[in-house]
Amino acid sequence: MTTYVPPGERKQQSPHLPFGDRRDTPFYGKDILSVAQFDRAALEYVFGVAHQMREMVERVGTFDLLKGKILANLFYEPSTRTSSSFLAAMERLGGSVIAINEVRYSSVAKGESLPDTVRTLEAYADVIVLRHPEVGSAALAAKYARKPVINAGDGVGEHPTQALLDLFTIVEEIDQIDGLTVTMVGDLKYGRTVHSLARLLALYDVRINYVSPEILRMPTEIVDELERRGVKQRSFSALESVLDQTDVLYVTRVQKERFNDPATYESVAGSYSITPETLRKAKDRMIVMHPLPRVGEIALEVDADPRAAYFRQMEYGLYVRMALLAMVLGKV
Amino acid sequence: MTTYVPPGERKQQSPHLPFGDRRDTPFYGKDILSVAQFDRAALEYVFGVAHQMREMVERVGTFDLLKGKILANLFYEPSTRTSSSFLAAMERLGGSVIAINEVRYSSVAKGESLPDTVRTLEAYADVIVLRHPEVGSAALAAKYARKPVINAGDGVGEHPTQALLDLFTIVEEIDQIDGLTVTMVGDLKYGRTVHSLARLLALYDVRINYVSPEILRMPTEIVDELERRGVKQRSFSALESVLDQTDVLYVTRVQKERFNDPATYESVAGSYSITPETLRKAKDRMIVMHPLPRVGEIALEVDADPRAAYFRQMEYGLYVRMALLAMVLGKV
Amino acid sequence: MTTYVPPGERKQQSPHLPFGDRRDTPFYGKDILSVAQFDRAALEYVFGVAHQMREMVERVGTFDLLKGKILANLFYEPSTRTSSSFLAAMERLGGSVIAINEVRYSSVAKGESLPDTVRTLEAYADVIVLRHPEVGSAALAAKYARKPVINAGDGVGEHPTQALLDLFTIVEEIDQIDGLTVTMVGDLKYGRTVHSLARLLALYDVRINYVSPEILRMPTEIVDELERRGVKQRSFSALESVLDQTDVLYVTRVQKERFNDPATYESVAGSYSITPETLRKAKDRMIVMHPLPRVGEIALEVDADPRAAYFRQMEYGLYVRMALLAMVLGKV
Repeated sequence: MTTYVPPGERKQQSPHLPFGDRRDTPFYGKDILSVAQFDRAALEYVFGVAHQMREMVERVGTFDLLKGKILANLFYEPSTRTSSSFLAAMERLGGSVIAINEVRYSSVAKGESLPDTVRTLEAYADVIVLRHPEVGSAALAAKYARKPVINAGDGVGEHPTQALLDLFTIVEEIDQIDGLTVTMVGDLKYGRTVHSLARLLALYDVRINYVSPEILRMPTEIVDELERRGVKQRSFSALESVLDQTDVLYVTRVQKERFNDPATYESVAGSYSITPETLRKAKDRMIVMHPLPRVGEIALEVDADPRAAYFRQMEYGLYVRMALLAMVLGKV
Repeated sequence: MTTYVPPGERKQQSPHLPFGDRRDTPFYGKDILSVAQFDRAALEYVFGVAHQMREMVERVGTFDLLKGKILANLFYEPSTRTSSSFLAAMERLGGSVIAINEVRYSSVAKGESLPDTVRTLEAYADVIVLRHPEVGSAALAAKYARKPVINAGDGVGEHPTQALLDLFTIVEEIDQIDGLTVTMVGDLKYGRTVHSLARLLALYDVRINYVSPEILRMPTEIVDELERRGVKQRSFSALESVLDQTDVLYVTRVQKERFNDPATYESVAGSYSITPETLRKAKDRMIVMHPLPRVGEIALEVDADPRAAYFRQMEYGLYVRMALLAMVLGKV
Repeated sequence: MTTYVPPGERKQQSPHLPFGDRRDTPFYGKDILSVAQFDRAALEYVFGVAHQMREMVERVGTFDLLKGKILANLFYEPSTRTSSSFLAAMERLGGSVIAINEVRYSSVAKGESLPDTVRTLEAYADVIVLRHPEVGSAALAAKYARKPVINAGDGVGEHPTQALLDLFTIVEEIDQIDGLTVTMVGDLKYGRTVHSLARLLALYDVRINYVSPEILRMPTEIVDELERRGVKQRSFSALESVLDQTDVLYVTRVQKERFNDPATYESVAGSYSITPETLRKAKDRMIVMHPLPRVGEIALEVDADPRAAYFRQMEYGLYVRMALLAMVLGKV
């Protein structure tokens, strides 16, 4: 599986290559900053490793591939879900974690710059996962860090590991991506998640349906980009029109604060809410995804439906993050 | 020791039983929600395992019984003592911990429901310890979780591991429970700790003395319940009357805010404060317990008295929590 | 290396000496509270162990010297840098950490005393690292704790591990301390760091230059103490006068709030700011140190200069803390 060679320079690493790290693995010493780094070959590589991680976790729970490695989990804004996922990923690989979740109270509050914080942390850690409210912060950190940086969300910028786990969920649940119809529903304008996923899907032969209220449409720049890349796209305002041809229904949250008029919000939120009734019109073999947390977009009664994949999606996230950590640290 | 079979269904676990987990152990896959789950046989089982844990910790410090297992330590309200105890318990067994202590800043704050949070965490973890301010929250979490849930306190509801460690302290310090006289002193009305302990003591042949101001008496429902179960109980307002027949003196904190009149508080707090002078009237072989933190209920000078068991009590808590974690994960 | 015997009593430890702990090592069971505990022999011992730690980390990343040991990292005030450093030190030695970073929300907030908190934590942990805003708190904690306490900063009091890492940086970068000229620049009045470093340097044959504005001079008591101990000291207000004879330039932050007049602050901060231009007048073989975080005292352009040692200084801190943890736990 090590024949794939991704573009870009490796980071300058210590001259002492610790035992077991391999410079000939494709992602060794690389940063994970954007979905734009990934082509189909790279995705296949990641998903292959993530699938192996899944098998290992199911068989033995944890193993010592990253024993002796330390992850600095640097979160400038709270995200229990993502930070827990990276933490568990590192621990299931036998590594350790320095969790920094409250930067408001720390030296950051004393005015230290992100590059200085990152260079301090890499004195202690082998890899840095960064969540930061500002666009471009992950790239800035990566520029200064000698150790690999993984972007865990930089404001309205990117959240590449979320997009990778979304795609991996489809691969694991439906086996292949080419030929599928993916329907995205809800807030497609502000949802970082659907933007990144759409860009990754453009690497495959898929049909994408956008279902949203007028004011929350998928941004024109993304639609245009996918248009140029030959993706079949269509926009709808009602879910019924496309549900029976949908293989993957990707639901996102419509936030009240996007609407001037509460009544409009209520009617929109109501019309896009997924219930057992909604799914009666869906295919027998399809999946419902959601990045979570949900607040009413999917009724609790849907959880028992085997097509409800959103909790399994969390678990796939664990495997993808295990894969990425092992990859940038030169183990696979 | 595996002949005891507790009541209740096991949780539906993964079809892949990880190496070393045993379905035939009595608490495998069970939740620990309430002291009502425990009869004498169950308590003896727990205390037997906890005693083995004590011996192992004293001999080797840590061992790898739960290597590869991950605990999600989910605290919706702060409790350094309890969260540190579970954390140390998991680490002394070679396992790892995802600590979530600041739920106010996390996705919970974004409005996610407890069931969704729990189902997300179990994608990463093997067992969940939950502290939550609302009564019934642990049962709610357990209902939705596939992985075992351990209640670490749900508001004025239960805190079963505290009651278990209290009883284990008595077992380890005095060797047996039948025949003992236990005197509870302080705030018996609002103290969750003494309520649960009283219920567990009712499984044994004990005499319980309640010493409290009129307004902080043990609730009638508990006194009535123990009456029906044949426990010898008496209430007192002064400690002197019973101290010389007491084997276990369980001290709790009387909080100022329970009193309308500061002067009344001062006199009550003063009269129940334990000093070296107080203990001069106590048996030579007895123990003083306190759930901690203390704020004046026990004078610092008492700490040097070998009968002062409250810091050892913390340590017994470690062993009980190690036992429970190993039990629900199918190792003993 | 175990021939050195430091002064002071060992702590009373458990009668069960865990496997692999050695009572005959010089720092076993000792507290690390003050730089005053260290003479040249002790420093050489620490630096010898720290150098071995450096070699091990470079060769294998992590090793299991402290496997089974638990550190309680008790921070009553935030310090990402120091807490992360101890955390990484413990994890690189195979041990585990109970991190308590938010004592404002914990039982401390309920009014528990430091001695009680420490005695509770030592029920779970093998060693306690304490950061506390009050002078003398580490000594107070050590008095009550049976387990070793390491002072990670007690207000304007001491921060001995910082001073040790500062000196270790000089040893590793320049090989020897005798004969060096150390120039301290910036706020020498309020900087705990430079006070402790000066006291340690007094054990060697060094020349110390103080460069600061009039109002931020090195306190007379320290200058007098070093005078008695025969250290060559001189004070300057301009850096140029001494830069070309400096082997170690120790830069500290000048804080705006120390000045009544903003204009004075600006001119002082400006004149002590280190730039590539400044360093043109410095020796070819010298080092620039800074305890970090920096806010403008050293220009970012200096980072690329091989003489800029402040990020390596962070890494040396890791090795020194690894050494101290292994030492007080009886492993070296």
